[in-house]
Amino acid sequence: MNKTLAEIAELVGGTVIGDGATRIVGVNGIKQANEGELTFVSNLRYLPYLETTRASAAIVGSAVTSAAIPLIQVARPDVAFWTVLKSVADAEVFRPHAGVHPTAVIGAQVQMGKDVSIDAHVRIADGCVIGDGTVIYAGVYVGHGSSIGGNTILYPNVVIREHVTIGARCIVHGGAVIGGDGFGFVPLEKVLYKIPQVGTIEIGDDVEIGSNTTIDRATFGKTVIGRGTKIDNLVQIGHNVEIGEHCVISGTTGISGSAIIGNHVTVGGQVGIGGHIDIGDGAVIAARTGVSKSVRPGAMVSGFPMKDHKRDLRIMACISRLPEIAERVHELEAQIRELNERSDR
Amino acid sequence: MNKTLAEIAELVGGTVIGDGATRIVGVNGIKQANEGELTFVSNLRYLPYLETTRASAAIVGSAVTSAAIPLIQVARPDVAFWTVLKSVADAEVFRPHAGVHPTAVIGAQVQMGKDVSIDAHVRIADGCVIGDGTVIYAGVYVGHGSSIGGNTILYPNVVIREHVTIGARCIVHGGAVIGGDGFGFVPLEKVLYKIPQVGTIEIGDDVEIGSNTTIDRATFGKTVIGRGTKIDNLVQIGHNVEIGEHCVISGTTGISGSAIIGNHVTVGGQVGIGGHIDIGDGAVIAARTGVSKSVRPGAMVSGFPMKDHKRDLRIMACISRLPEIAERVHELEAQIRELNERSDR
Amino acid sequence: MNKTLAEIAELVGGTVIGDGATRIVGVNGIKQANEGELTFVSNLRYLPYLETTRASAAIVGSAVTSAAIPLIQVARPDVAFWTVLKSVADAEVFRPHAGVHPTAVIGAQVQMGKDVSIDAHVRIADGCVIGDGTVIYAGVYVGHGSSIGGNTILYPNVVIREHVTIGARCIVHGGAVIGGDGFGFVPLEKVLYKIPQVGTIEIGDDVEIGSNTTIDRATFGKTVIGRGTKIDNLVQIGHNVEIGEHCVISGTTGISGSAIIGNHVTVGGQVGIGGHIDIGDGAVIAARTGVSKSVRPGAMVSGFPMKDHKRDLRIMACISRLPEIAERVHELEAQIRELNERSDR
Repeated sequence: MNKTLAEIAELVGGTVIGDGATRIVGVNGIKQANEGELTFVSNLRYLPYLETTRASAAIVGSAVTSAAIPLIQVARPDVAFWTVLKSVADAEVFRPHAGVHPTAVIGAQVQMGKDVSIDAHVRIADGCVIGDGTVIYAGVYVGHGSSIGGNTILYPNVVIREHVTIGARCIVHGGAVIGGDGFGFVPLEKVLYKIPQVGTIEIGDDVEIGSNTTIDRATFGKTVIGRGTKIDNLVQIGHNVEIGEHCVISGTTGISGSAIIGNHVTVGGQVGIGGHIDIGDGAVIAARTGVSKSVRPGAMVSGFPMKDHKRDLRIMACISRLPEIAERVHELEAQIRELNERSDR
Repeated sequence: MNKTLAEIAELVGGTVIGDGATRIVGVNGIKQANEGELTFVSNLRYLPYLETTRASAAIVGSAVTSAAIPLIQVARPDVAFWTVLKSVADAEVFRPHAGVHPTAVIGAQVQMGKDVSIDAHVRIADGCVIGDGTVIYAGVYVGHGSSIGGNTILYPNVVIREHVTIGARCIVHGGAVIGGDGFGFVPLEKVLYKIPQVGTIEIGDDVEIGSNTTIDRATFGKTVIGRGTKIDNLVQIGHNVEIGEHCVISGTTGISGSAIIGNHVTVGGQVGIGGHIDIGDGAVIAARTGVSKSVRPGAMVSGFPMKDHKRDLRIMACISRLPEIAERVHELEAQIRELNERSDR
Repeated sequence: MNKTLAEIAELVGGTVIGDGATRIVGVNGIKQANEGELTFVSNLRYLPYLETTRASAAIVGSAVTSAAIPLIQVARPDVAFWTVLKSVADAEVFRPHAGVHPTAVIGAQVQMGKDVSIDAHVRIADGCVIGDGTVIYAGVYVGHGSSIGGNTILYPNVVIREHVTIGARCIVHGGAVIGGDGFGFVPLEKVLYKIPQVGTIEIGDDVEIGSNTTIDRATFGKTVIGRGTKIDNLVQIGHNVEIGEHCVISGTTGISGSAIIGNHVTVGGQVGIGGHIDIGDGAVIAARTGVSKSVRPGAMVSGFPMKDHKRDLRIMACISRLPEIAERVHELEAQIRELNERSDR
């Protein structure tokens, strides 16, 4: 990267405050940036760092009108910075291997798209469909009859089991396992017999799935991840779960079988969602919530057992004062005893 | 699948209510089923769906005697449906590759059983024993001196480290790592020195291990998973843990080193079990419990710190009313003040 | 192993109590040990087992002066036993394959150190640096421009993404994914756009990383793991996290983006650490803590929301008595009612 601040301002549709000829050779966080780099302030708690940053310029919101360094003023600094990052990243697109590497083992009747990159030691089983421009890194397994959309990236050692459908422009990070058997058993005289998991998985376009995340296939029917949904690392998604569009599921969260999650739902980290639960559109599940019953659209919930978030905050405040509350109860008992004695006299 | 309802009733030992000639071409959940499919009702909360399902027939328990669609009545609908699913799945057994794929790299002195299926890019180190009929998918690693029983399935990219023993008819899902070093260090002047993990792992017959689950080898001696135990995805099992027979361990649970778990124990999701803890036969550990001390056989526990489950439910109910309890304490204080003033007068 | 007790006492700098000619052929835990094996007692709760162990000898601390079996007395039994284990393990060093296996696929301009062991189906992309004596097991992927220090071990199916730096004498266990994209998106009219993750990761010397653990690369700048830090299995570490030196991070813990952790910090299992949080040197975070705000150096914290550990213990004790506290409040109300009635009369 090597641009003037004025050129970047044009790219993001912003206004330069200060020297537009300032030369920018990289981008960085406000605490880490060095001379020649552009940074940004979106979260106002980072505003004080604008005075001490070594960056040569910053993208800021309309509330900031001057600083020790040149600025680009925009309505949404996060979006503007994303635009700059994206222009840098797009200029550096990487493909592990053009075409199909000779060590890849491709099954029979595989429909291979145009301009694919399939790296060493990939195994694609019979009857798969691989979309145009899709990139499959080393060590990936794609089971028979599975279909991967165009311009999707499967990072190294991803496992896609059989008869799974993945959309276009998806990103699946290293080690994720998609389509493992659902966890279902029938107990018969204290022995557990496996319920065959004959269903599958359907993942929409523009979905991102984190490293070592696991998504189980349906017992029958299908597990569904809606278009545009983003799933972090080490998330467990059980059989027959249905997640809507444009949701965010944070890391180390577990979602039990047959839970139904709407669109635009935000799920924090280390959340547990019980089986057969419904979560409405736009709901927000705070980190570490244990979702033990269904959640209304737009609600914000937290705690375990789960409560409305505002109610949970009140309860948490009470818990923090619990030793003092217990002390006051003890004190009241003493006073009552005394009053009783007095009134008996 | 293409059978009459009468044929299926015979398979499961049930009684047809309605037209036994109804033709069944598939099986599905009650909400997802379409015409031509068979469904079932085991959990009574799904009973209302029997009126609206598009399925052509249903397996039900003795409590249901009529419906808009033909029925098969049995004592245990879950077992009967499992029997049907199993007959469908058994007809469709899949093997990734007959024999040993030429890209697999097999070490010296490996005892290879009959009728194995070893797919592309598998690596089996020296001195391993692979049982008859065992299926090893692409990208699996088996370390030196390990032994895999007959008719076991290792799904893609599973890692079995050295000197590990796995029983017959086991299923290990994609990406699971069995035999990694236990997590043990000796602190010497604030630096941590690794304790060599010279022990191993012994896994019984009919064990199922979920995707990306990790089971550590023993420091010395062995980590043990008993016959018939089923472990879900993303479970962490520490060094020298001993789990009994026919247990169920749900997803994203962590079990610390040297915990001892009996037979027929049920562990919910996101449970944490501390080190050096004993859990008795038949105990039930509710989801998200933090097991901080030993559990008696047959007990049901929950919460963190862990409590008897009934006691925990009472405590949880109190916590939910805590703001009101605090308010009542405040109110009592006001009334006492007033009584004191009155009595002082 | 085949040594006399006297030889072992010399190795660990201890004093023999009893027959120094006792022959030792192995080491084991006090409950599992058999005849011919050496065991140890470090934790005093295991002292009673010294009477019943089948071991032929034990390493003990200065508090133990006699037993039914010969002893080696030392100041730190854990360190002495570690010394013995290490001498056993060092005699059995294993290398999966000397040199570079012919099925490994090595990119252009890779600087390969001396005495490396690179096993089957490894993929090393262009421009990597592999240090002397480093061992890379089967199925490992190392992305372009990454650097692995000397005498480091990468266990099977590890994924190291591009431009990552790993130090010397590190151990990365099977299936770990290092350098996946950070989890960051810009929301624009309810659709989430990926923030390119153009940063990297820097891992110091002597770091150990557990099976299937995931460490994300920085959005920009770098994610840092300091020298000597040990990370257990299934741990999630977000983008731009900085962890100091000689820390211990236990299994299934999640650390959100941009958290800063000092040196010598101990983090228990199933801990969640929020984003942009500071944890001071030497802090201890108990298992299952939800770290929602910064932690002072040397503090011990627990609970969720997080509290000083001593305070949390008091609160936990109150919670355990909550049904009785609620009952007492109820009782107080009855007594007040009666007093009010009496005083009204």
